[in-house]
Amino acid sequence: MNLDDLIRTSGEWLRGSGPEADIVISTRVRLARNMAEFPFVNRASSHDKAQIELLLRERIMECGFGSSLSYIDLSGLESLDRQFLVERQLISREHAAAEGNRGVAFAPQENVSLMVNEEDHLRIQVMHSGLVLEQTWEEISQLDDQLESRITYAFHEQLGYLTACPTNVGTGIRVSVMLHLPALVITKQIEKVFRALQKLSLAVRGLYGEGSQASGDFYQISNQVTLGKSEEELIKNISSVIPQIVLYERQARNALVKESRQNLHDRVSRAYGILRTAQTISSEETMHLLSSVRMGINLGLIEDLAIPTVNELFIQTQPAHLQKLQGSALESEERNVARATYLRGRLRQAASDN
Amino acid sequence: MNLDDLIRTSGEWLRGSGPEADIVISTRVRLARNMAEFPFVNRASSHDKAQIELLLRERIMECGFGSSLSYIDLSGLESLDRQFLVERQLISREHAAAEGNRGVAFAPQENVSLMVNEEDHLRIQVMHSGLVLEQTWEEISQLDDQLESRITYAFHEQLGYLTACPTNVGTGIRVSVMLHLPALVITKQIEKVFRALQKLSLAVRGLYGEGSQASGDFYQISNQVTLGKSEEELIKNISSVIPQIVLYERQARNALVKESRQNLHDRVSRAYGILRTAQTISSEETMHLLSSVRMGINLGLIEDLAIPTVNELFIQTQPAHLQKLQGSALESEERNVARATYLRGRLRQAASDN
Repeated sequence: MNLDDLIRTSGEWLRGSGPEADIVISTRVRLARNMAEFPFVNRASSHDKAQIELLLRERIMECGFGSSLSYIDLSGLESLDRQFLVERQLISREHAAAEGNRGVAFAPQENVSLMVNEEDHLRIQVMHSGLVLEQTWEEISQLDDQLESRITYAFHEQLGYLTACPTNVGTGIRVSVMLHLPALVITKQIEKVFRALQKLSLAVRGLYGEGSQASGDFYQISNQVTLGKSEEELIKNISSVIPQIVLYERQARNALVKESRQNLHDRVSRAYGILRTAQTISSEETMHLLSSVRMGINLGLIEDLAIPTVNELFIQTQPAHLQKLQGSALESEERNVARATYLRGRLRQAASDN
Repeated sequence: MNLDDLIRTSGEWLRGSGPEADIVISTRVRLARNMAEFPFVNRASSHDKAQIELLLRERIMECGFGSSLSYIDLSGLESLDRQFLVERQLISREHAAAEGNRGVAFAPQENVSLMVNEEDHLRIQVMHSGLVLEQTWEEISQLDDQLESRITYAFHEQLGYLTACPTNVGTGIRVSVMLHLPALVITKQIEKVFRALQKLSLAVRGLYGEGSQASGDFYQISNQVTLGKSEEELIKNISSVIPQIVLYERQARNALVKESRQNLHDRVSRAYGILRTAQTISSEETMHLLSSVRMGINLGLIEDLAIPTVNELFIQTQPAHLQKLQGSALESEERNVARATYLRGRLRQAASDN
């Protein structure tokens, strides 16, 4: 497949729909799996990795859902294209940066992706827009069952699924919910929320996972531990916590509207104004301003722009997307100019469509 | 006359025309005159002041140009209306703040104003858009001659015209040129220009004269001394200096365009964007942003807005103008909201007219 075909579209998880979609960007579940007959990726030879990829690719494509997937050989891909897949959340940053035989299979809607030879032989991921934990879990569980009927997973009676990193041993599951929490940031309540989450063994990460900064007021909340609890328990744990945070964010937004509607409207409106007029703009400032605009739309302070457009812009103004949109590699300063030009064009278009 | 009729119009000096109008906002000449038969204003009794006003008003109206003038009795005016006249530069801040009988006569185009019982019995002022020193001097000289044929000025053979403050003795003239110098401010060359002007006995003041801050990158340059030099010499002195400063500013603008066109365009474009979208904005920020926009228009970086509109906005977003436009007294925060609303409306209108 040609990656360029993806640029103008966006993944299902950016659709801005589903329960609590004003605050919950997306729900993601991933499973870490390994084949019993091969060493873990970090111990595997080049030959092993080639074999693993060949076999897994075959097995994946044999499944009922396999026919709809595109498979991308990452080792044959330029760095820019790998970065592009990271920005779309189809592969991890580690998967992009790794070497040797590896690849990814994903569905056209980008709600399913299967990474081959990431940290584990197989990482299965299902994502959806909004807060849809049960459905996402059911879908990934079915995919996993179909694959398990064709692959002998490394599995231990007592430990459960065996994984390259001990933190994933057991269920191999990570449940992540991406939240947009601008009001908790503005009102400086976000640290309090983080402390509460840590006590519940939940991790908080930025937009691009482990080690990434929380730009644009996006926070991924996910389970830390996979051992000793069933998948259902972990899902239930997250299910009980997220609505609380959503409620806090909503209360913070309402308080802001009530106490300083004028200032909030001013902040939101100026952010929109700058995005429509800047001639050069960094990625960080873009995320920051888009965050205000996104909240502004949800609070009815901006009326000529839709959430899916803003969700898309968060991704399409990332470096690799920009360069692919531009059709050439760009230095940082050139990217800032291209980003500003792209934003002006898209926002002019969006406003005139409304 | 009804002051409200003035709000929607602007003085001739804001027309944005005349030589060097991209940098020279206006040229102003004022003459300080006193009547021989009365004590200076600061020594005059209430009765004296009433007599002075009565007499001067009569003499002014008798002149050929008198019939076109409106006379406003300042002692009968509310503070807001006096502030309004200050913002239009028809009276000085001191004249507005003073007490007792005093007034101002001005032409419908606001290019001529005559203050009665300011610091001196009579202050004659002629203003024009752009750099037009000779014409302005000729016009005020004619007005002065017409008045002198009807009034016995306090005049001393050796000292010249006698005035309340010794710094005005002699010719009683102050020649002021208002410059817009954003590029010299950005490139931090403005202090160097000031030091050079001081050596030439020229004063630098802000938009509203003595003691006012230089907001919006506006600077009034005027002569310090009036004694010992003829009017023609003073005019010639300023005439030789201003083109130099205009040249420096123009060079600074060109250098900015050449060295960092993108950043300059960004600064200008964002300023315009914020002015069109802010929901609350202070007077200071407005001046600052309008200054960028004004330079942007002159450099061809903004195309859907005209200089006269921007010149007008500098005045119409001042506190008294805003309150008169709103039709009611406003607290500072309310003014900030009214100012933002007014700016959005005017700039939307201006862009759609273009």
